[in-house]
Amino acid sequence: MAHKVSPLAPERFPDLPPLAGVRLGTIAAGVRYKDRVDVMLAELAPGTTVAGVFTRSKTASAPVVWCQKALPGGKARAVIVNAGNANAFTGAAGLKAVEVTAKGVAERLGCRPRQVFVASTGVIGEPLPAERITAALDALTAGLDADRWSAAAQAIMTTDTYAKGVTATARIGDATVTINGIIKGSGMIAPDMATMLGFVFTDAALPADVLQTLLARGAEKTFNCITVDSDTSTSDTVLLFATGQAEHPAIARAGDPRLADFRRALDAVLLELALLVVRDGEGAEKLVTIHVSGAATPRAARRIGMAIANSPLVKTAIAAGDANWGRIVMAVGKAGEKADRDRLAIAMGGVAVARRGQRVPDFDEAPVAAHMAGRAIDIAVDVGVGKASATVWTCDLTHAYIDINGSYRS
Amino acid sequence: MAHKVSPLAPERFPDLPPLAGVRLGTIAAGVRYKDRVDVMLAELAPGTTVAGVFTRSKTASAPVVWCQKALPGGKARAVIVNAGNANAFTGAAGLKAVEVTAKGVAERLGCRPRQVFVASTGVIGEPLPAERITAALDALTAGLDADRWSAAAQAIMTTDTYAKGVTATARIGDATVTINGIIKGSGMIAPDMATMLGFVFTDAALPADVLQTLLARGAEKTFNCITVDSDTSTSDTVLLFATGQAEHPAIARAGDPRLADFRRALDAVLLELALLVVRDGEGAEKLVTIHVSGAATPRAARRIGMAIANSPLVKTAIAAGDANWGRIVMAVGKAGEKADRDRLAIAMGGVAVARRGQRVPDFDEAPVAAHMAGRAIDIAVDVGVGKASATVWTCDLTHAYIDINGSYRS
Repeated sequence: MAHKVSPLAPERFPDLPPLAGVRLGTIAAGVRYKDRVDVMLAELAPGTTVAGVFTRSKTASAPVVWCQKALPGGKARAVIVNAGNANAFTGAAGLKAVEVTAKGVAERLGCRPRQVFVASTGVIGEPLPAERITAALDALTAGLDADRWSAAAQAIMTTDTYAKGVTATARIGDATVTINGIIKGSGMIAPDMATMLGFVFTDAALPADVLQTLLARGAEKTFNCITVDSDTSTSDTVLLFATGQAEHPAIARAGDPRLADFRRALDAVLLELALLVVRDGEGAEKLVTIHVSGAATPRAARRIGMAIANSPLVKTAIAAGDANWGRIVMAVGKAGEKADRDRLAIAMGGVAVARRGQRVPDFDEAPVAAHMAGRAIDIAVDVGVGKASATVWTCDLTHAYIDINGSYRS
Repeated sequence: MAHKVSPLAPERFPDLPPLAGVRLGTIAAGVRYKDRVDVMLAELAPGTTVAGVFTRSKTASAPVVWCQKALPGGKARAVIVNAGNANAFTGAAGLKAVEVTAKGVAERLGCRPRQVFVASTGVIGEPLPAERITAALDALTAGLDADRWSAAAQAIMTTDTYAKGVTATARIGDATVTINGIIKGSGMIAPDMATMLGFVFTDAALPADVLQTLLARGAEKTFNCITVDSDTSTSDTVLLFATGQAEHPAIARAGDPRLADFRRALDAVLLELALLVVRDGEGAEKLVTIHVSGAATPRAARRIGMAIANSPLVKTAIAAGDANWGRIVMAVGKAGEKADRDRLAIAMGGVAVARRGQRVPDFDEAPVAAHMAGRAIDIAVDVGVGKASATVWTCDLTHAYIDINGSYRS
């Protein structure tokens, strides 16, 4: 189970400051792992609004179904998360397990069960022993504290090799608000969403519909533009909570110009969270940024980018440090989107490799090979048919991916 | 370069009999490999008809473009194939290389260049040294012989670990006709088509449009239902030639009842050729058959099957002998096709693993684990929404896939 920490990991977990209206608790409930903290509870102040984006899987997990039903209420008083068991493909018993958990939290916090959001990650297809979670609720709520961000990020990990958190501040009017986010995810990462559970909190005071617009727009260019292995989880969930504790002018629209700085900060947090997941891609040795330009539409650009990012042949070549532009051409071709083979241009690490549909004359591979030997790989592809572009991120495909996934039942 | 022969390989290359109207030659032209036979020429009797199916890649190779233009003529006098260089992403020079090759063959055989079909496989993005092929044409044509099937299958290999051929006979009226097929392909295999070059020959006398219908229909359930790694080649080509040397009643329609036995035999040859490719999937240790039933449409069934067959998480689990039904549920969910999570049923090796959306009660994993330890893995999934079904084939994802593709520039 214990895999070495990704070489792409940040040096350390950042200092996430206390955030007014959020108290956190963690506990070792023994859901699946022994002697490991595996449950995280965030208590949210009354009045907290919520937004969410979820997996588009047709076999979504019970907690996803629960959250999707709770979301229209727009209010949240808590989110509880367990690692080790995804509570997916567990039938009626799975929904019951979510309900029991939400009720248990609601009783202790004095709210309605529908204001308790639930997320689970881990093995699919095994019954979730919810009684182990409810048995731990008294101790969990007793230990709630404003300063437990690192512990919370630890508690939700599965095959993650490091805990993931991001913090930022933004101005709304004269007020400074904080945004804290934690996330887990490392395999089964692909649009739309991933085995990715992300929880973002702010003390800003924003209506649920404004939050939802901001999160949905932000996710399009962040969480939906990353992939580790093209596999989409049954459990992907990103929730955004606004506790409303900051004092700033009332905002009624996502497009309000006074939200400009907040939107920028939120998008940056979402992107950094997404990249933390890619950096922990199972077996990843390299972080790969793929910029596609010259596409017919932004959607086409993203699909071409994802075809490159998901290609096992491209990813194994990158793992080997091989500047294999031929496989990139192949991946562009298989994307099914408009591309002009005879105008295709490819650069790696800023060095032109191919232009007008063929390798550049007198191509000197040395600088490209040097770039490919590094940790951060940049690939730029112009498909020569339009003006739309997109950026997607992935990691390489290494032996460690197979080791991890041939030994862990997720 | 030399990888161990796939454990899924047949014991030996079958005895392909001479086929009236076909003479074969092979030679070491030094296209890329040193001291290796790398060019194959099949001379076809005057009157030979031809059908073809090709990659749907938007970055198709120069030989694919050539063959697609030649196909409407309906007649073929030769097919020439080289290994080591795919002549893809080679711009105008690539088309010129095909033209020069076809002209060289046409001069020697006394036909029009458009009756010479050309296919190339190997590295993408490098100029093809066509002059090495044309320089070898005199020796190649001088050595043409009816009994060179095994050598021909050898000549077109790239990362293949064994030569691939199939033979069958069929009755048309009172006549017995022969079908011989050879194929290469081992990675970059996915619908529609693969880095797969397949050449099927028969001495039957069939109009080109009849051949085309038979081949297109047959490919749908064979070549388009296999995948090794979801990557689609720029070069996939399967050509079917009918030399017309057999004496049987004239056939004008693909649906002619007198063609029933021929259709059956041809479909069997196409399927066996396709499975030979999967059995040689790069790094393959197990052949995986996935049967999807209960789908809304045949297309949905195939897409769900392919989502399972292409999932790196499913494939790594199979490599590890892990009966990981949770990942199958995940893959069904990500296919984007209608599926009823709460009616989903999964069996492995004929043993029910899940039913009505959850693991079967008191599931005994032992017989399933025994099945998963074998070479031939059977997975059956019923998605519970309709009556359509499909079967697809793939292989597992092993360390050897990464070794092969991290070292070979294809």
